[in-house]
Amino acid sequence: MTGLVVTVGVAAGGEERDVAAIGRALMAAGVTVAGRFAVEDDEAAVAEALAAGAGVTVIIAGPGSSSGDVVRRAVARLAGVRLVLNERMLAALEERYRRRDRPLPRRAERLALLPQGAMPWFSPDTDPAWMLEASDRVVVVLPRGADIAGIITRHLAPFLASRSTPGHVVLMRTLRTAGVALGDVEERLADWLGRSDDTGATTVTVVPGSPGGDFEVWVRIVARGPGAAESLERVEPQIAEALGDDCYGRDDETLEQVIGRLLRERGLTLSVAESCTGGLLGHRLTEVPGSSAYFERGVLVYSNQAKQDLLGVPEAILRAHGAVSAPCAEAMVRGICAASGNPVGLAVTGIAGPDGGTPQKPVGTVFIGVGVAEDVEARRFQFSGDRSSIKWQSTQMALDMLRRKLQRWSPESPSVQA
Amino acid sequence: MTGLVVTVGVAAGGEERDVAAIGRALMAAGVTVAGRFAVEDDEAAVAEALAAGAGVTVIIAGPGSSSGDVVRRAVARLAGVRLVLNERMLAALEERYRRRDRPLPRRAERLALLPQGAMPWFSPDTDPAWMLEASDRVVVVLPRGADIAGIITRHLAPFLASRSTPGHVVLMRTLRTAGVALGDVEERLADWLGRSDDTGATTVTVVPGSPGGDFEVWVRIVARGPGAAESLERVEPQIAEALGDDCYGRDDETLEQVIGRLLRERGLTLSVAESCTGGLLGHRLTEVPGSSAYFERGVLVYSNQAKQDLLGVPEAILRAHGAVSAPCAEAMVRGICAASGNPVGLAVTGIAGPDGGTPQKPVGTVFIGVGVAEDVEARRFQFSGDRSSIKWQSTQMALDMLRRKLQRWSPESPSVQA
Repeated sequence: MTGLVVTVGVAAGGEERDVAAIGRALMAAGVTVAGRFAVEDDEAAVAEALAAGAGVTVIIAGPGSSSGDVVRRAVARLAGVRLVLNERMLAALEERYRRRDRPLPRRAERLALLPQGAMPWFSPDTDPAWMLEASDRVVVVLPRGADIAGIITRHLAPFLASRSTPGHVVLMRTLRTAGVALGDVEERLADWLGRSDDTGATTVTVVPGSPGGDFEVWVRIVARGPGAAESLERVEPQIAEALGDDCYGRDDETLEQVIGRLLRERGLTLSVAESCTGGLLGHRLTEVPGSSAYFERGVLVYSNQAKQDLLGVPEAILRAHGAVSAPCAEAMVRGICAASGNPVGLAVTGIAGPDGGTPQKPVGTVFIGVGVAEDVEARRFQFSGDRSSIKWQSTQMALDMLRRKLQRWSPESPSVQA
Repeated sequence: MTGLVVTVGVAAGGEERDVAAIGRALMAAGVTVAGRFAVEDDEAAVAEALAAGAGVTVIIAGPGSSSGDVVRRAVARLAGVRLVLNERMLAALEERYRRRDRPLPRRAERLALLPQGAMPWFSPDTDPAWMLEASDRVVVVLPRGADIAGIITRHLAPFLASRSTPGHVVLMRTLRTAGVALGDVEERLADWLGRSDDTGATTVTVVPGSPGGDFEVWVRIVARGPGAAESLERVEPQIAEALGDDCYGRDDETLEQVIGRLLRERGLTLSVAESCTGGLLGHRLTEVPGSSAYFERGVLVYSNQAKQDLLGVPEAILRAHGAVSAPCAEAMVRGICAASGNPVGLAVTGIAGPDGGTPQKPVGTVFIGVGVAEDVEARRFQFSGDRSSIKWQSTQMALDMLRRKLQRWSPESPSVQA
């Protein structure tokens, strides 16, 4: 293996999400990420992870000061040096608290105890990171809640570049799909998978983009070596063509962001009516900054009474078909559009379990309704998994149905009056 | 170190959540978990993680069939054996598909290729797990989506017990707090932390129970050795007393479950009105199985129009104080209780950012209103972090305010008419 290899890990209940973010940022900066790890708040475990790590190990210390202590001691032990008061670190910490008009807390002095030879890396709004070079290895310690992107750009990437073999390039592209199962994507790309040994330059893998790969599946294209950019340019369009409409975006673009973009481009606003998803659909849509421009309101209609009060679902439908039915999902869409005045409506009703299933409608039966400018349709799904997973899959399929409908929709449709 | 030590990991984008669940189950079964790891879908990385692991390594293979291949090859290489068709595994897979009236897919035959000497572990409803003992180490491979609890109970725990040193006991208790910052919990328990070296028997650590430890902080008490049960019995009540009302539950009990229990005990039903949290509050409440018994409805009132339409928030309040204000939060609580007829209401309105802040109400300004039987109060909070984190903190504080209010509330209050 050529070039620098980095292991990224987290100690003491820190977030796997951060580890993944650092991994992606490093890949984007052309650095090979050899592995990830997560260890408990225990000095021996941290020391072992550091010893097992690659030439460069990046570790995020959990937010507890005890966790920071554990990491500091483990790094000092690995390097065979003592913990000493780092004056630059102390000054930076004092300055940071002074600017917030707060006294230096007791723990802050402990934060300035670093292994001899450590170098603090400063960041405007967070506790400083620090690094230690010791013989054949480098350890970088990031505080939890760090401005990770900033630290990578200002400190870590330039540092690694200064030590990297010139010409060693790794490029990664992620093509994101929604609405298809992982196995189906694998089958469609069978010719591309596992071929890395033939060419040596480009690897295609299919990875779950969500818990269990539940209808959010990503295709990773990694190109290495001096011809990486050309390889990527050649392979990506072919993979994209094989994925077709199932591919909704690339790299960091989320399904929720794509829906936001489609709504803005078409000048449409959206409201939702959720039963079994209990708010997850609204939560996902409003994770996007600026979503208030197109997400206007939602109702969580857990009871039948709420479905009647807030959406005007006719009692006859509830009696004849039940709340978990296509007619109810359609009535929910029409109801939320009529009540809110928004042209786009999305509705979910189903049985998330573990109770409430029947032979005709077992746990995991979910009806999703989507309407754009009075063109309303509903589909039945049968999901499997636990309550949490069924809720997630329901929102994923609802968002994907909406995405596809919006992509097909054009403002010529006569029924929309902006 | 005495007794068996286990490393738990995940390959190829599997879920860190599963790794944590296995770790907890093993701890509960008295097994020391030395570390956790997560590696990409790459044979060399998996092999490295296995080699670095403890005497027993448990690995969850990602859902992709390529991921399973990678793990099978890496384990075979580590043990120095070949992959052979395992007849028992093949028969079990065929049976599994037969019962679902589905033909054996092509990939399934590949699933039966196991390292020579591997032993399948069967489970009623999922693909089989398997294990391989090779000289000084044991590797256990779990399929993604496995019935992890079942496999641990039926296979893994008995197997480990059969090889474990008698008398080696590890007990863990988690005391969960809400509404307090991690540093505050650490300060309050300062006398207990880092004292493991004194007694050797009991360790107390403070860990974030949520991303960043944002007002969901857990205290872990780990007791080891023959006197573990007595140590735990002695220490736990002292820690619990130091935590007081901030401790809402133990071990796996979530804040949402505690709220559900309090509402059921008091015969109360709940509805929510969310602005900046966009559905996350309802989503969290409805993660609890059976929550439809007390969670009746919710409204996501992103726009001012929705606040007026669905909650009757007076335009005068919106004009005089703005939507992000204590009067608006109180009006939202009264509005949702009146509209739904539920005696308990919870409302959140704030600025999740990154845009929309002002000098008087910067990003992170959030008002939470809670009402039980017409006793309504609202509080202002100033959170920090990104949009996602502010949404999470808002729901956490809202749930915790409700929990404390319900704990204080008694049905003698004259204003509730069941």
